[in-house]
Amino acid sequence: MNKSLDLIGIGNAIVDVLTQAEDSFIQTNQINKGAMTLIEEDQAEELYAKMGPAMEISGGSAANTIAAFASIGGRCGFIGKVADDQLGGVFRHDIKATGAVYDTVPLTGGLPTARCLIMVTPDAERTMCTFLGASVWITPGDIQKEFIQSAKVILLEGYLFDKPQAKQAFMKASELAHEGNTKTALSLSDPFCVARHREEFMDLIDDHIDILFANEDELKGLFQTETLEEALIEVKGKCELIVVTRGAKGSVILTSGQQYDIPAESVESVIDTTGAGDLYAAGFLYGYTRDEDIETCGHYGSTAAAAVLHHMGARPQQNISACLNRVQERLQERKKIAYS
Amino acid sequence: MNKSLDLIGIGNAIVDVLTQAEDSFIQTNQINKGAMTLIEEDQAEELYAKMGPAMEISGGSAANTIAAFASIGGRCGFIGKVADDQLGGVFRHDIKATGAVYDTVPLTGGLPTARCLIMVTPDAERTMCTFLGASVWITPGDIQKEFIQSAKVILLEGYLFDKPQAKQAFMKASELAHEGNTKTALSLSDPFCVARHREEFMDLIDDHIDILFANEDELKGLFQTETLEEALIEVKGKCELIVVTRGAKGSVILTSGQQYDIPAESVESVIDTTGAGDLYAAGFLYGYTRDEDIETCGHYGSTAAAAVLHHMGARPQQNISACLNRVQERLQERKKIAYS
Repeated sequence: MNKSLDLIGIGNAIVDVLTQAEDSFIQTNQINKGAMTLIEEDQAEELYAKMGPAMEISGGSAANTIAAFASIGGRCGFIGKVADDQLGGVFRHDIKATGAVYDTVPLTGGLPTARCLIMVTPDAERTMCTFLGASVWITPGDIQKEFIQSAKVILLEGYLFDKPQAKQAFMKASELAHEGNTKTALSLSDPFCVARHREEFMDLIDDHIDILFANEDELKGLFQTETLEEALIEVKGKCELIVVTRGAKGSVILTSGQQYDIPAESVESVIDTTGAGDLYAAGFLYGYTRDEDIETCGHYGSTAAAAVLHHMGARPQQNISACLNRVQERLQERKKIAYS
Repeated sequence: MNKSLDLIGIGNAIVDVLTQAEDSFIQTNQINKGAMTLIEEDQAEELYAKMGPAMEISGGSAANTIAAFASIGGRCGFIGKVADDQLGGVFRHDIKATGAVYDTVPLTGGLPTARCLIMVTPDAERTMCTFLGASVWITPGDIQKEFIQSAKVILLEGYLFDKPQAKQAFMKASELAHEGNTKTALSLSDPFCVARHREEFMDLIDDHIDILFANEDELKGLFQTETLEEALIEVKGKCELIVVTRGAKGSVILTSGQQYDIPAESVESVIDTTGAGDLYAAGFLYGYTRDEDIETCGHYGSTAAAAVLHHMGARPQQNISACLNRVQERLQERKKIAYS
C-alpha cells in the first residue's frame, strides 16, 4: 500500500526546561528520582523558582521520536496541543523545522503550553516533573482520519492516558489506524504511568497495538513480575513486535518466533539520558518503515539513542543519518564475513 | 571601602535561540558571519521560521558575565529590561537562579522580550541576529544610585549604545559609579557596534572607563589600525586596565606600566564560542574584585572562557569555581618553583 508518510506521532506537546541538579535537590524537594511526576501549574512555578539556571528545549516523548525520525530523513508528522503562547511557538518551530508535518490547532484562552521541569543529576539520570497545561486539551477532533491513514505507522505515547480527552483522541487514532492498514506502535512511557493505567494498557495491547516499546521497569510493572524474563514470557505473542530497552544493557526484541538481543552503542561520556528511549524508537521505526530486518532495526535504535546522551536535552544535535549508514555498513560487512 | 556587591552588570536582557547551521545557510540568508546584526521583529520571525530546531538559553553579553560571575561565587547583580512574557520569565529565572540580584521592572504592554537568533557553524563560530525588543526600553529610571554604588565594579556592554534611552541609562550608571568610588568596566561588544559608535566610545573610554574589555577586531576597529600592535600603542594609558581577548591566541593585558600575555586554556573540542568573551570578563573580574594579581586575573579569564566552549550557549553548565581553584594552585606552584 502506498502511504505518503512513514510515521505519525501523537503525544503531549511539551517544552522541556532542563537543569543540572545534585541528588540532594531531588531529595529535599521530595521528588521521585528517575520518574515522571505530574504537577499542577502552581507547583511548577514553585519548583521552577527553586531550580538552577536552565535551558528550554522542545520535548515530549512521541514528539522527540518524531523530531529524530525527521532528522534522519523519514517522512513524518506530529499531533499534539500547544497553547497560543511563546513556548507554544518554540515547540511548533522546532518540530516543523525538522521537516515534520505539524498542523494541530493551538489552544487559545486556556492553559499555557506544557512544560516538563527536568533535573539531570551527576549520574546523567533525568527526573521529570510535568505540568501538562494545554497539551491535555487534545481531543478526538484533532485526529483526522485521512492524516492518520496516510502513515505506515502511528506512534502513541502512554502519557496520553493521563487525561480523559487525550485518551479518547488516542483511542480514535488507534481505531482509524486499524481500519486504514496503518500499524500502531505504543510507547509505555514510565513505570508510574503504567501503574496508573495498568488494566487499560493490558486491554489496549491485547486488542490494538502492533509494536510495543517499553523499558525493563515498565514491562515488569505491566505484568507485575519480579524479573524481565518472567515479563518477557507474559508479553510474548501479544503484539507483532515487542521492543524492550535496557539502557546500557541494550535491548531485547521479540517477534512471534524469535528473540533478538541487541547491544547498546558504547558511549564515552553520558551527560543526560533524557529522551534516549524516544530516540531508540525513532531509529527502530526508521528501519521498520524501510523494511529492514529486525536486527538492523535494533541497531538503528541503539545508535539513535546514543546520539542524545552526549548533551542536555532529548532532541538530536548531530546528523544521526550518517551514524545509521555506518551501522548498516558494519552489519553488511559482518554478514559478508559470516557467509564467506 | 566596604561594598556589599562585587559586580553589577548593565546590559541587554536577551534570550538566545541557538541552532547549528551550515555556512551555506549564513550565505543564503546574507548574514554577516561571526558578527551581531540588529534585526526587527518581522525579520526575526522570518529568519526563525527558516532556522533549524533550536534551544533557548538566557543570554545577553553583560548578563552572561554576571551569570558566570555568580556561579563562581561572586556577589553580583544585573540591570536589564525584559517584557512581562514567557521568555522574560525565562531570563529572570535564569539570572536569579545563579544568585545574582535582579530587580529591573519588566516592560508591560510593549515589545516582547529580546531574542538573539544564533547560528553556530561547524567551525564553532557563532553568528548572531538580535531583535532587541523590550531590552532597549531600559531607561535612566532603572538605574538606582544606591544599587550602583553598592558594587566594587559595574560592567557596561557596548551594545547598550545602540538605542538612545539605553545609552542614557549607561551614562547615568557610569557617572554614579564615579561619584561613588565604583570602578567602571566596558565591554566593546562587536566590531560593527564599535564602528557604529566609534567617536562616542573614544570619549567614553578617555573620560569614564577604568577597565576596558575588547577583542582584537574591536580594538583595531576602535583605533582604525591594521595591526593589534598599533592599536595597543594607541590604547595604552587610556584606562587603568586594558584587556584584549584573542580567542585561541589567549589575551593581552595592559596596565599603566606593563604588558601581560596570557595563554588561552587548551580545549579539546570546541562546539560553540558564544559567550567566550563574556565568560573571560567574568573570570577576570572575579580575580580583580578579590585583589588577585593581574596574571591570576588573566588566567581566571582564560579558564572561565574555556568553560562554555564545550557546549551550546553562553551560560556555564559546570562548576567554574573548581576550575579557578586549580588555576590558583597551578600558579602558586609555579611561583614556588621560580623562587626556589
